[in-house]
Amino acid sequence: MPAMDKSPTPPAASSDTAGGGAALGRRRLLSGGALTLGGALAGAGIVAAAGDGSGSASGTGAARPQNVAYGVQKVPFHGRNQAGIATPAQAHGVFLGFDLAPGVDRAALGRMMRLLTDDAARLTQGEPALADTEADLAELPARLTVTFGFGPGLFKAAGLEDQRPASLTPLPRFSIDRLQDRWSGGDLLVQICADDPVTVAHAQRMIVKDARSFARLRWTQRGFRRGRGIQDDGLTQRNLMGQLDGTANPVPGQDAFAKAVWTDSGPGWLRNGGTTCVVRRVRIELETWDAADTKAKEFTIGRRLRTGAPLTGTHEKDVPDFEARDALGFPVISEFSHMRRARVNEDRLKIFRRPYNYDDAPDSGGRPDTGLLFVAYQRDIGEQFLPIQRRLADSDLLNQWTTPIGSAVFAVPPGCAPGGWIGETLLG
Amino acid sequence: MPAMDKSPTPPAASSDTAGGGAALGRRRLLSGGALTLGGALAGAGIVAAAGDGSGSASGTGAARPQNVAYGVQKVPFHGRNQAGIATPAQAHGVFLGFDLAPGVDRAALGRMMRLLTDDAARLTQGEPALADTEADLAELPARLTVTFGFGPGLFKAAGLEDQRPASLTPLPRFSIDRLQDRWSGGDLLVQICADDPVTVAHAQRMIVKDARSFARLRWTQRGFRRGRGIQDDGLTQRNLMGQLDGTANPVPGQDAFAKAVWTDSGPGWLRNGGTTCVVRRVRIELETWDAADTKAKEFTIGRRLRTGAPLTGTHEKDVPDFEARDALGFPVISEFSHMRRARVNEDRLKIFRRPYNYDDAPDSGGRPDTGLLFVAYQRDIGEQFLPIQRRLADSDLLNQWTTPIGSAVFAVPPGCAPGGWIGETLLG
Ligand code: HEM
Ligand code: HEM
Repeated sequence: MPAMDKSPTPPAASSDTAGGGAALGRRRLLSGGALTLGGALAGAGIVAAAGDGSGSASGTGAARPQNVAYGVQKVPFHGRNQAGIATPAQAHGVFLGFDLAPGVDRAALGRMMRLLTDDAARLTQGEPALADTEADLAELPARLTVTFGFGPGLFKAAGLEDQRPASLTPLPRFSIDRLQDRWSGGDLLVQICADDPVTVAHAQRMIVKDARSFARLRWTQRGFRRGRGIQDDGLTQRNLMGQLDGTANPVPGQDAFAKAVWTDSGPGWLRNGGTTCVVRRVRIELETWDAADTKAKEFTIGRRLRTGAPLTGTHEKDVPDFEARDALGFPVISEFSHMRRARVNEDRLKIFRRPYNYDDAPDSGGRPDTGLLFVAYQRDIGEQFLPIQRRLADSDLLNQWTTPIGSAVFAVPPGCAPGGWIGETLLG
Repeated sequence: MPAMDKSPTPPAASSDTAGGGAALGRRRLLSGGALTLGGALAGAGIVAAAGDGSGSASGTGAARPQNVAYGVQKVPFHGRNQAGIATPAQAHGVFLGFDLAPGVDRAALGRMMRLLTDDAARLTQGEPALADTEADLAELPARLTVTFGFGPGLFKAAGLEDQRPASLTPLPRFSIDRLQDRWSGGDLLVQICADDPVTVAHAQRMIVKDARSFARLRWTQRGFRRGRGIQDDGLTQRNLMGQLDGTANPVPGQDAFAKAVWTDSGPGWLRNGGTTCVVRRVRIELETWDAADTKAKEFTIGRRLRTGAPLTGTHEKDVPDFEARDALGFPVISEFSHMRRARVNEDRLKIFRRPYNYDDAPDSGGRPDTGLLFVAYQRDIGEQFLPIQRRLADSDLLNQWTTPIGSAVFAVPPGCAPGGWIGETLLG
């Protein structure tokens, strides 16, 4: 075997936009789907990068053909908010819940977050992490975002319990819960999302490698939505119950979204761009849901399956009429329907849902292990998520077919400027 | 709760191509990526369907916005060969290995295959399965293919052992193998592939539900490749070792592919469009692979990491020069490199690789559970796959970083005409 040098691999993606970038621009301009997304993308600061493949790790000098497709798109890492929240949800997401190792204190947490921030800042821009051992896999960021959250235990470890947002505590046990330890809790959340599963796998690998001298992996939850470009951007997607899921969600870029999501009270370090995140693993009892007929399914949510329209309307975005009664005098939209129980009118009290489907291996009898990684962002868990979850736990027809089996809460620090790091306002 | 009717949901995708189809055509015509794929798609008979969403399950009459993107593309189900083999590999794949239930005989197998064929024929065309309980999820086929294979045990159950291809037996145990029962064997394979993971999940659900009165699910292996549109179609993809994987593969549509893949000897029922399939679950020892440097990695395969070029060339598709020697007189491409050990020159003796990556949850120490669902199609396992696997098991530098942990073999029946069913030439 020849002598082996340790020369680092050069960054794979160049910032030259003359090649792939131009072609991508052309594609986006000409395809209806991309036009639909236009506004949202601009709002979330999505830009296209060229992965011209001209770097050569081993001196062969041969360029690979240009990539002009979705893979080269990148989401800026730096900014007032962390990316991956207002970012239109990517096709693939993995959620990593870590427990801090004994003895990891504020100083160590600072080192860890500097390291992980550096990884995230590079990988999301299509550049290899500093210690990247599979540098070529960093080439296609595919709108990669890496988002960090701090669980209650992190504040304790850092000796900063007075800086913990008051409502950042494990959620109370609800009667509907069947929580499993292996899907619950955690001191550190890393949410990794991209439109490409290979990109997610590589980013996960780099983050896990750099985190593991500080923390143990408590849980890994991988989820998916429709692939990028599978349906027009901006259309509401179906979940694995077949429902259009997301219709009444606050819309990133709009004022109502900002009011609901960005924390504006409590400890100062979290204000100016921070938020909180709830991750609930909700099993879907697909066996019995499948047995229900369309009318029952629609009655349960208060919306049509096919169109997502409220039972009192014809189009998905029609405003539901909760006063409407049927011939017998009963509400058309049941008081126990999921939509009605979950509804909040005041912008500041809404939550922003950013869920992913999961579908693990069925058992030998073919019974599915399917559900929703229910992920919600809001200013304040106690003021927003909790009252909704309480109302749903009390009486929601959907409970017959859904079971929370995991639960975790995190404070999500603001974004950072170039040279800064995520968590600096708390740990710095 | 109102009375619930049982009226079936109408098919979700119409065959009208005036709307989404036209727009899709426009996109394909104008985007470089789609043009690159043009030939391959045409060869594999990919057509675009319109999902105009005009069906209405519940009489609201409201149409959803049109889908004009990748989701509406469909791969014809009927034909001389089953789809999902020559089909350019979709982004997502799940492999289901079933054990037949006791007492399932030839007649029952016929019933099962009629049922599953009907499901596959509908779902791949964007129509709900007959007993589809989430009909709206069938709307976006996203190049869905469903491919069936028969394991050795099926021939026994059917009383047709004389019809079993001679080399269709569990592979011999290789010294490198660490096979686990839970990833090995199986009487029936269902390979479900699509560019969208929601589509895969729904098709899997329908197939599993209809198969389970005949069979138990032995294993489920889910894998992924680059998302559709992430990189240009036709470019070789990287696997999770960072290698360009697929360079020297036979190319569907070319004569050499047909020679290698379609069975032309042995039992008559398998000729005229049948093939065989090997599914090996190969763990990648990413911890140690990461520790190797670029030169070692390249020496192991005999190709450059960055470009995929043979060590004797500069471009990915350059013909390797196995005679070339370095200054010291050693072969530039090692005799123990994976490429050299795996190389076959005669078309009829090649295998066609159609692998998927897997990446399951790392352990609490962050050690990955990563690898390749190595899937190979060939006329005859004994003549083609076996000698290659033997040479690799004997001495392949790559063995240091890869471990086969699952193994299964299947005969893959020819396709069928409309009204026919997969397996009819054996079981009918
Ligand atoms: C498997 C679990 C769940 C499923 C399948 C599900 C599904 C749905 C669907 C189909 C809708 C109507 C369309 C829409 O606006 O998105 C909806 C609305 C909503 N859901 Fe859920 N949901 C689940 C769990 C939850 C949980 C745990 C919460 C919060 C605690 C929640 C909060 C909401 C809210 C706030 C709305 C909007 C209500 C409105 O203002 O119209 N959901 N959900
Ligand atoms: C984790 C497992 C494996 C990995 C990561 C891997 C990777 C690779 C790579 C990077 C190449 C060179 C590029 C190409 O032509 O695709 C290659 C070639 C090849 N591999 Fe593998 N491989 C694996 C397992 C296997 C197995 C189990 C077999 C068959 C028993 C096999 C058969 C081949 C063949 C036939 C070639 C083409 C050789 C040539 O003609 O140049 N590989 N593989």
